[in-house]
Amino acid sequence: MTQAAPKSHAGEQDVDLTASALDHRIEANGKLNGHANGPNGVNGHANGHPATLPALDASKLTVHTADPTAREVPDEATACSGNETICTDHMVTCKWTVAAGWEAPELKPYGPLTLMPTASVLHYATECFEGLKFFRGFDGKLRLFRPDLNARRMLMSTLRIALPGFDPKELEKLIIALVAKDGRKWLPRDRPGSFLYIRPAVIGTQPQLGVQAPKEALLFITASFMPRMDSPAGGMKLHTSPEDMVRAWVGGFGYAKVGANYGPSLLATAEARARGYGQILWLYGPEGYCTEAGASNFFVVWRAKDSGKLQLVTAPLDDKLILDGVTRRSIVELAKIRLPSELEVVERRYTIDEILEADGEGRIVEAFAAGTAFFICPVSAIHHRGKDITIPMSKTGESGLYTAKIKGWMKDIMYGNEQHEWGVVVDEE
Amino acid sequence: MTQAAPKSHAGEQDVDLTASALDHRIEANGKLNGHANGPNGVNGHANGHPATLPALDASKLTVHTADPTAREVPDEATACSGNETICTDHMVTCKWTVAAGWEAPELKPYGPLTLMPTASVLHYATECFEGLKFFRGFDGKLRLFRPDLNARRMLMSTLRIALPGFDPKELEKLIIALVAKDGRKWLPRDRPGSFLYIRPAVIGTQPQLGVQAPKEALLFITASFMPRMDSPAGGMKLHTSPEDMVRAWVGGFGYAKVGANYGPSLLATAEARARGYGQILWLYGPEGYCTEAGASNFFVVWRAKDSGKLQLVTAPLDDKLILDGVTRRSIVELAKIRLPSELEVVERRYTIDEILEADGEGRIVEAFAAGTAFFICPVSAIHHRGKDITIPMSKTGESGLYTAKIKGWMKDIMYGNEQHEWGVVVDEE
Repeated sequence: MTQAAPKSHAGEQDVDLTASALDHRIEANGKLNGHANGPNGVNGHANGHPATLPALDASKLTVHTADPTAREVPDEATACSGNETICTDHMVTCKWTVAAGWEAPELKPYGPLTLMPTASVLHYATECFEGLKFFRGFDGKLRLFRPDLNARRMLMSTLRIALPGFDPKELEKLIIALVAKDGRKWLPRDRPGSFLYIRPAVIGTQPQLGVQAPKEALLFITASFMPRMDSPAGGMKLHTSPEDMVRAWVGGFGYAKVGANYGPSLLATAEARARGYGQILWLYGPEGYCTEAGASNFFVVWRAKDSGKLQLVTAPLDDKLILDGVTRRSIVELAKIRLPSELEVVERRYTIDEILEADGEGRIVEAFAAGTAFFICPVSAIHHRGKDITIPMSKTGESGLYTAKIKGWMKDIMYGNEQHEWGVVVDEE
Repeated sequence: MTQAAPKSHAGEQDVDLTASALDHRIEANGKLNGHANGPNGVNGHANGHPATLPALDASKLTVHTADPTAREVPDEATACSGNETICTDHMVTCKWTVAAGWEAPELKPYGPLTLMPTASVLHYATECFEGLKFFRGFDGKLRLFRPDLNARRMLMSTLRIALPGFDPKELEKLIIALVAKDGRKWLPRDRPGSFLYIRPAVIGTQPQLGVQAPKEALLFITASFMPRMDSPAGGMKLHTSPEDMVRAWVGGFGYAKVGANYGPSLLATAEARARGYGQILWLYGPEGYCTEAGASNFFVVWRAKDSGKLQLVTAPLDDKLILDGVTRRSIVELAKIRLPSELEVVERRYTIDEILEADGEGRIVEAFAAGTAFFICPVSAIHHRGKDITIPMSKTGESGLYTAKIKGWMKDIMYGNEQHEWGVVVDEE
């Protein structure tokens, strides 16, 4: 028989329970900025533990310095040639438990983690991460690029995957501490125009089998070499996703940087690579909406069918299918400010058929993938259901004109050719 | 401009590229049964490495025995009361690399794993697992329940998440080796009617950041205590999933036991638990199709609207939204064989509205969740959008009649009251 629900729930809208629960938790953690609450703060954890436990606090960081002579810094080509990521001398770690909150974070020598075989992360993908770079400027300074955006997205991803919340400003301070510690040695002043890669991650470490929000977690941050992937010879070639494989879906978690978005995509990517393509162009729904290129956002420059206007088109954020990329956002903002009359920026759903049609009518101007790892990477071809679309790469064959222009602006900010608020200078030790 | 694709691809159907790639790999690994190929076999890995490397081979197992007096076996209640899973004395591990194939597996003392912070599994959810139990029979024997089905599903999950393939029979032998080693001490003869839980898992261990199929992996198998969850007081209460959270989707990976299906579900589950419900009843699509209950399959017994026939209804496998559960399959098979005239078994899509309608018309007879962890667990209520549906639990208030009957048959096979081919006896050391 059907009964009215218990009174406490009767008036509740639980239709968007997940999104609102997440929003409330993000808001609660945001209020911790500057430790207005003192050392105790909202944990914002799915376990619903009382908000009276120690919050993540960068001011408590303990430092154990590695022997600086123990490891030499390889050149970039050597460092990126093997099957192992070369990290710098140090890493940051911080433990959390539902009973005691966040411990004091540690900056210590880089090394292995020890996990029980029953650790949550190894079975249930209770894991999320971020990726950002730090840059050795042509002015000799070390810079991060908009690290506040990464830290805020990391909080959202962490809460989405039922791991403990934190004040994003504290994460940003920990990132800066690691860069300050290892920047001088690992990204030396005689390598201007170079970068290293920072990988913060949170994983569920509770050694208990069972499908539940972990009661123990570990935050860790590494800094490492990462190959330059923004200029593959002849441009990046994309293969559209097969009909029987969907990367993300409405109501899912495509917008969060959680491990669960990546592992399941590898099979199709490997298949595409075996056929000579670099990444998958992920389509969505029977309409074939273009969403992401590999694990990067995707942009097309075309002349609009109706108006004939030059447009920079990319998928929208509001359906939560794609990642709110820092590179994506910066491109959109720069194009709006610096090319207002030349290039109309359009964030909307668009289909692979629209691209095919534009190609047939000669309206495609250029295309590129954008993300931290691939930076801004020109796309030269899209393979879709037996057809190859060739994307113009300008006369030089290296990159489209707008791709090159926007990429140049971004580089200038990252490497200090332009003083800009997005380039956050780090004082190195 | 649009060109014809290169010749080698022109005739290819790549519409169902993923499913067919997977089927081919599963088939290739299946052919390894009994090592017809000798020690070299198909690795079936997404990296497409030549099939000339050592395959997983249980006959190469090396054994390092733990000190049997070092740890005492706790009673079941104590073992299941903490926040940590208590494992037995030993575990099985086996390393794989794309360059050298599978190493010799090891049976060794249970203990922590060491992973680099850059390990694939910690970032990209390159992980999958299985869950099965072994039982101390009332006849004193140790039994597994249909381990061949778990081993075959594990191969499918492993390939789906771009990890290396293996012959499922070899995995089964390794599981049996662990049960044989630890069964006598950890599931002693004076505990008939008890079980322990086996957790095989494969994880991507390559220490390299970057979204790619891992070139190193680790298979490990643990045996541990696991709480009995099949008889919560008053039955299991379910809360339907919020509209903004979808567990799995057509074209996704809901049918594979990969970590990526679990972590993203924890937030909604924690929210439901905070409201007094045990698990989420996952709905799919605007129609609200019932798919799974938590991480278990879901069954309803009702009188059909049209025919008035008594039906056992559960979601189908063909759309690949749900797990092909061993318990689910066994229930379907037993009900068909043993209750052919009484209960019609129906595997089809059915909606929450059909349940509401059947409830309103008094046609709901009983309902239960079914899986290895929850075994067969009576469901007493479903909360959906402000309404509570009460499910009959028979006069005793403990379980529906058919739920109890099927559960009894399963138990008899598991604990040796009935000699049945599904109960695989293990000779203990």
